[in-house]
Amino acid sequence: MSAIGSVRGLLEEADLGDQIFALAARIFPICRSITGNGVRSTLDHLARHIELEVHEVPSGTELFDWSVPPEWTIRDAYIRNAAGERVVDFRSCNLHVVNYSGPVRAQLPLDELRKHIFTLPDQPDLIPYRTSYYADHWGFCMAHNQLAALPDGLYEAVIDASLEDGSLTYGEYLQRGATDEEVLLSAHICHPSLANDNCSGLALLTHLAARLASMKTRYSYRFVFAPGTIGAIAWLARNEHRVARIRHGLVVSGVGDGGGPTYKKSRRGDAFIDRAMAHVLQHAATSPTILDFFPYGYDERQYCSPGFNLPVGLFQRSQFGTFPEYHTSADNLDFIQPEHLASSYRMIVALLEILEQDWWPLSTTPKCEAQLGRRGLYSSLGGDRAGAAKSMAFLWTLNLSDGGHSLLDIAERAKLPFGVVADAARLLEERGLLVEAGRDARPRLRVQGRAPCRG
Amino acid sequence: MSAIGSVRGLLEEADLGDQIFALAARIFPICRSITGNGVRSTLDHLARHIELEVHEVPSGTELFDWSVPPEWTIRDAYIRNAAGERVVDFRSCNLHVVNYSGPVRAQLPLDELRKHIFTLPDQPDLIPYRTSYYADHWGFCMAHNQLAALPDGLYEAVIDASLEDGSLTYGEYLQRGATDEEVLLSAHICHPSLANDNCSGLALLTHLAARLASMKTRYSYRFVFAPGTIGAIAWLARNEHRVARIRHGLVVSGVGDGGGPTYKKSRRGDAFIDRAMAHVLQHAATSPTILDFFPYGYDERQYCSPGFNLPVGLFQRSQFGTFPEYHTSADNLDFIQPEHLASSYRMIVALLEILEQDWWPLSTTPKCEAQLGRRGLYSSLGGDRAGAAKSMAFLWTLNLSDGGHSLLDIAERAKLPFGVVADAARLLEERGLLVEAGRDARPRLRVQGRAPCRG
Amino acid sequence: MSAIGSVRGLLEEADLGDQIFALAARIFPICRSITGNGVRSTLDHLARHIELEVHEVPSGTELFDWSVPPEWTIRDAYIRNAAGERVVDFRSCNLHVVNYSGPVRAQLPLDELRKHIFTLPDQPDLIPYRTSYYADHWGFCMAHNQLAALPDGLYEAVIDASLEDGSLTYGEYLQRGATDEEVLLSAHICHPSLANDNCSGLALLTHLAARLASMKTRYSYRFVFAPGTIGAIAWLARNEHRVARIRHGLVVSGVGDGGGPTYKKSRRGDAFIDRAMAHVLQHAATSPTILDFFPYGYDERQYCSPGFNLPVGLFQRSQFGTFPEYHTSADNLDFIQPEHLASSYRMIVALLEILEQDWWPLSTTPKCEAQLGRRGLYSSLGGDRAGAAKSMAFLWTLNLSDGGHSLLDIAERAKLPFGVVADAARLLEERGLLVEAGRDARPRLRVQGRAPCRG
Repeated sequence: MSAIGSVRGLLEEADLGDQIFALAARIFPICRSITGNGVRSTLDHLARHIELEVHEVPSGTELFDWSVPPEWTIRDAYIRNAAGERVVDFRSCNLHVVNYSGPVRAQLPLDELRKHIFTLPDQPDLIPYRTSYYADHWGFCMAHNQLAALPDGLYEAVIDASLEDGSLTYGEYLQRGATDEEVLLSAHICHPSLANDNCSGLALLTHLAARLASMKTRYSYRFVFAPGTIGAIAWLARNEHRVARIRHGLVVSGVGDGGGPTYKKSRRGDAFIDRAMAHVLQHAATSPTILDFFPYGYDERQYCSPGFNLPVGLFQRSQFGTFPEYHTSADNLDFIQPEHLASSYRMIVALLEILEQDWWPLSTTPKCEAQLGRRGLYSSLGGDRAGAAKSMAFLWTLNLSDGGHSLLDIAERAKLPFGVVADAARLLEERGLLVEAGRDARPRLRVQGRAPCRG
Repeated sequence: MSAIGSVRGLLEEADLGDQIFALAARIFPICRSITGNGVRSTLDHLARHIELEVHEVPSGTELFDWSVPPEWTIRDAYIRNAAGERVVDFRSCNLHVVNYSGPVRAQLPLDELRKHIFTLPDQPDLIPYRTSYYADHWGFCMAHNQLAALPDGLYEAVIDASLEDGSLTYGEYLQRGATDEEVLLSAHICHPSLANDNCSGLALLTHLAARLASMKTRYSYRFVFAPGTIGAIAWLARNEHRVARIRHGLVVSGVGDGGGPTYKKSRRGDAFIDRAMAHVLQHAATSPTILDFFPYGYDERQYCSPGFNLPVGLFQRSQFGTFPEYHTSADNLDFIQPEHLASSYRMIVALLEILEQDWWPLSTTPKCEAQLGRRGLYSSLGGDRAGAAKSMAFLWTLNLSDGGHSLLDIAERAKLPFGVVADAARLLEERGLLVEAGRDARPRLRVQGRAPCRG
Repeated sequence: MSAIGSVRGLLEEADLGDQIFALAARIFPICRSITGNGVRSTLDHLARHIELEVHEVPSGTELFDWSVPPEWTIRDAYIRNAAGERVVDFRSCNLHVVNYSGPVRAQLPLDELRKHIFTLPDQPDLIPYRTSYYADHWGFCMAHNQLAALPDGLYEAVIDASLEDGSLTYGEYLQRGATDEEVLLSAHICHPSLANDNCSGLALLTHLAARLASMKTRYSYRFVFAPGTIGAIAWLARNEHRVARIRHGLVVSGVGDGGGPTYKKSRRGDAFIDRAMAHVLQHAATSPTILDFFPYGYDERQYCSPGFNLPVGLFQRSQFGTFPEYHTSADNLDFIQPEHLASSYRMIVALLEILEQDWWPLSTTPKCEAQLGRRGLYSSLGGDRAGAAKSMAFLWTLNLSDGGHSLLDIAERAKLPFGVVADAARLLEERGLLVEAGRDARPRLRVQGRAPCRG
C-alpha cells in the first residue's frame, strides 16, 4: 500500500491540545454575529494557519428561501444609571447585547427597560446569550441577580449599532487529495464570546487543516467556516453544482469540554460516516452518545435538508442544550481544556483514518484457514489460552475477506478497533494472504463468498 | 384541503360516554346467543340509532367449512328443590343456563345434577359464562358457594329451550364515503348479559356510526354486528367478492373497562392499521399493550384466516382472559363506565382521523430549510431554549416532506402525535411550503429525496 | 406420511447415557495427537460400533495452505531427579508431555528445565494441556504446586518420541438416506486424555451413528472423526467435489458436562440449522447460550472458511474456554456424566427430527377457520378458559399453513416446540385439513396466502 491514504501522522504532536486552545483563546473575545467585522476578524486569525479563501456575499442576495440580511456593526452598548455609571457594559462582555440588535438610544424607567432585558432566573449569576436575527428587536442580557439589585429609576440604554447593506462573510479551505471526492468539515463562526460553542470547533478544524497540508490523502478535504444557518445556506447555494462530490461530512462544534462524546447521525442514518463515527466513538469512550438525526441543531440541518440529504453528521462532546454552561457566559475559556480539544482532535483523525483507509480485502486462501503458524502470525502453543486472543484480528480479517466485507465491516463484526484490523490486513497483504479487491467506502452489494469486480 | 377527510367533529359531545353507557345498559339484560331472538332484539335497539340492515341466514346454509346451526330459543330454565323453590333461575340471570343448551326436564339427585353444573371454585361468588355450541349438551352455571350449600336430595332441572331450523341473524350498516374503499368495524353480538363483552363494543360502534352519518369521509365505513365466529364466517362467505375493498379493519370488544388499552395486530403485522393504532395508543396511554397476532380471540380469527388475510386488528381495553371479571357475572354494568367508553371512543376516532387524514407532503423548498421566522412560524430569538421545541413539528414535517414520507411516517419518526403533525402540515401547506403529493394510506416505495408521481 | 423421515425411535434406550459414557471411558486413556497411533487406536474402538472407513493421508501431502505434518510417535517421557526417581511420568498421565513434542534426552539444572515446563499458577494442582504443533519444541506440563516443591539440582528430561514420515489418520462413516443430500456430523479426535474434550463427542456421535443405521432417513448422514484443524482440512481437501451436498452440519465437542447448552451459529448466521438448533435449545433449557459465529474454536473454523462457508454450527454444553476444567487434567471422567451425555444426545436427535420432519403445509380450508369442534379437535365449551390452550397448536398450524411457512416457521412463530406442531400437522393432514406443499428445509420465497409449486 502506498503512503497515500493514511493520516496517522496527524497524531504526532504532544502539545496539540495547547495549540488548539491558544487559537480558541485568541478568537474568544471577538464579537461575532451572522454578518459583520467579527467574522472577518476571526477569519483573519484562522488565516495565519491556513491559506483561507474568504467569500463575501452581498446583503440582499437571494439564497433559496432566504436572502442575505443587512450587515451588523456594533460599536458600543451599555445601560447607564442616573449617576452616569455603566451598570451593563458591552465592552466587558459582548454577550450583554442581544446579538444583531438594532440601534437604540433611550432614557426609560427600569420597568420599561426590563422588557428589553434577558436573564436566567435559574442561573442567576450568568449572562445568557440571545439573538434577534431576522427580527426588529433590541435588547440586553445580564445576570439575574444584578438586575434584581438595580434600584428603580431612570436609565439610559444605548446600543451604538447599525444594520446596513454590506455582506455576509465566510471562509473556505480546500486540501486537494488524490481524487476530487470530498470530505466536508464545517464549523459555525457566528457566535460571540462562547468558548466551546464554537471557538473550540473553529480552532480544532483550523489546526487539523494546517496539518493535513503535509499529508497525501485520497479524499479532498473542504473546510467551511461560515455563520450558522445563513452561512451554510450561502455555501450550499453557491456550490450546488459541487455537492455531489461530497462523500462524507461532519459538522464540528462544542469540542472543548470533557463530556460526551456525542455523534448525531446524518439524515440518511446509514451513511458510511454514520457507521465510521459510531465505531470511533464506541472504541474511544465507554458510553458515547449516538443520536439519530433530528432537524434541529447546527448546520447539519441545511446539509441534511431533503433536497441535499448529504451524508453529514454532527460531532460534539456534550450534546448542545444538555449542559448548564450552554449559551451562557459560563461557556468561557475555563470551560474548555487542551486535553479535551486534543482528544476530540484524535477522534476526528480516527474517523479520517477510516475514510482514507477502508478497503475490501480478498483472501488468497479462502478454502480452510491459512496456516498462520508457519508465518509467525499465530501462537504456536495451541493450548495457551492467551495465545488465541492475540490471533483473533488475523482470524477475523481472513475469515471475512470474501470480497463482501470492507475493513470497517470486519472491525464492526469482530468488535475490534478499526486500526487493529487495518494493521492485521496490511500484514496479511504483505504475506500474500490478502489482495485488495476494491478501495473506497462506497456501499456495495454484498455477496457472500464472491469477490466484486475491482473498483 | 376540503372538509372531506376529517372526523374530528366526532369528538364534540360532552355526554357521549353516558349515551354509550345508556345503550349498553339497555341491551345488557337480553339473552343473546349465536342464533335466536336475543340477537334480533339487540339489533332492534341498535336500529333506533342507525339504519341497520338485518340479514337472516337459514339453518343449514353451508359457509366454507361450517354450516348455520339450528336456531336456539330459550324460554325458561331453572333448578327446583324438593320444596319446589327455584334455587337457580334463568329469569334472574341468563348466565345460569349454559348458552345454547338443549332442552331438558328431569328429576335427579344432586350428585347426578352436579355433572351438569359449572362453577368457579376460585371465584366462588360468581356465576361463570359457558356455552355448548356445536355440541349436544345441557347444563347450568352457578356460584360455587351456592352449589356447596345445596343440601343433598332430589332436584328438578328444567331447560325450556328448543334447537330447530331457523336462521342466523346479523346486522350491517354502511356509511358511504367519497370512495368505495372500506373500513370494516366489527363487534360480536352473541354473548348474553356480559356488559363489557360485548354490550360495550356494540353500543360504542352504534353511536360512532350514528355520528359518522353527518361526516363527509373519504372511506366508506362498514359496521358489522354479528355473532362471534359463525356470524363473521357468514358475513365473509356472503361478501367474498367485496373483501378486496377492505383497506383497514378493526374488531371492537371489551371497551368499557378502565384497563389497557390493548391492540392486537392483524396477521400481516405491518398493515397500515397496525402502525396507526399503535401510534394512537402510544400517545393515548403511558403503557399500552401492543400484541402480535395470534389465532385465538375474537373475529379477527376469521378476517385474518390465511385465505383472507385482511388488515384487521382487535381493539380492547383490558385484554380478554386477563382480568378476573372476564366471562363471569362480574362483567356487569358496574364493570363498565361512561368515562372509559368515551376514552375508547376517542381512541377509535383518533384512528379514523389518521386513516382519513394521512397524506404525502412534498416540500416546495427542499434545498435548505424554509425561512420559518419571516412567516411567523419560528421563535425569533434563536438563543431561547423553549423556542426550539415549539418549532419542532414544523421542522420535522418540512425535513421529511420528500415525497417518501406520509404524515404518519413523520409522526412516528418525530415521536409527535399525528394530530400535531397534521396541523403543522396544514399550516405549511397554507403558506405554500408544502404541496400534497398523494393522499392515501397505501404503502409506497420510499425514495429518499424524490417525489413519487401524484397518486 | 411414510416412515421415512422421522428419527424419534432414536430416543428409546433408557441406558444410552451409560453406553456413551462407557465408550468415552474406554478411549479416555489413549494418548492421541494430530497424527499417530493414538488416533488409530481410538478409531479401532469406535469401529466396534459402526462400519468405519479409515483414511490415511501421507505426511507431506499438500492440503490447501497446509501440508500433512510428520507422524508423531510417543513411547515414554519423564523427568527424573538426582535420585533416579520419576518426578514427572508420562505413563501416569499423558498430559505431562507437551503434545507433539520432539524428542529430548538431557541433563539440566532445574532453572534450565523450568523453561520447558508449563503449569497453571491459578490452578496449582492441575496439569495443563499444551501442544507444540507445527513448531520445533519440547516440553512438559505439571501441577504448579509440584513444580514449586522440586528442590534445586540436576534433572534428567527424557521424551522418547519421534516425528517421522508417516500419515494423518481420520475415520468416516456414511449412513445413506433416501437422498444424496448430506448432514455432516464432525468430532475432533486429536486431544489426549481429556474426557469432555472430546471423548464425549466421539462416543456420542458413534452411538448415534450406530443407532441411525436402523432408521430410514431422508438425508444421508456423514460422520467425520478427524484430528482438529489439519484433519478437517484434509477431509475438505479430499472431498471438495462433495461439499455442495452438505445441507446441514454440526461440530460436536464437549457434550458430557452439565453446563450450557451452547450453540455457536454457522458463519451464515441464518442457516436452517442455526434456526433449528436455536429452537431445540430454547425448548430444552431455560437459558441456552446461542452465539454468533466467530473464527476461533473447533473445526467449524474450516467448514465456515469463506471459500466453503458451509452451514455448519458447533454444539457444546459449557462453551469451550469458559470453565475451569477446560484443557486441564480436571477434564477427566469425573467431569462427564451419563445423564448429561444422554441429554446432549436427545438435543441432537431433536435437531435431526427437525431436519428430517420439516415440511410445508397448505391448508385445504384457508378461508375462515376450519371447524375443529366437529372433528373432535377443539374444546366444545367455548367459555372454558383451559380449552383454548389445548387447541392453540391446531389453530397456529392452520392459520400459518399458507404455503409460506414450514413447520419450523410455525413452531417459531407460535413459540411451541417443533414436535407439538409436527404432531398437530400430522393430525390435521390425516383429517384432510392440510396437504403437503413441499418437503425440505430449503429456504423459499415466502408468499403470503399463496402456495408455492410442489417441491
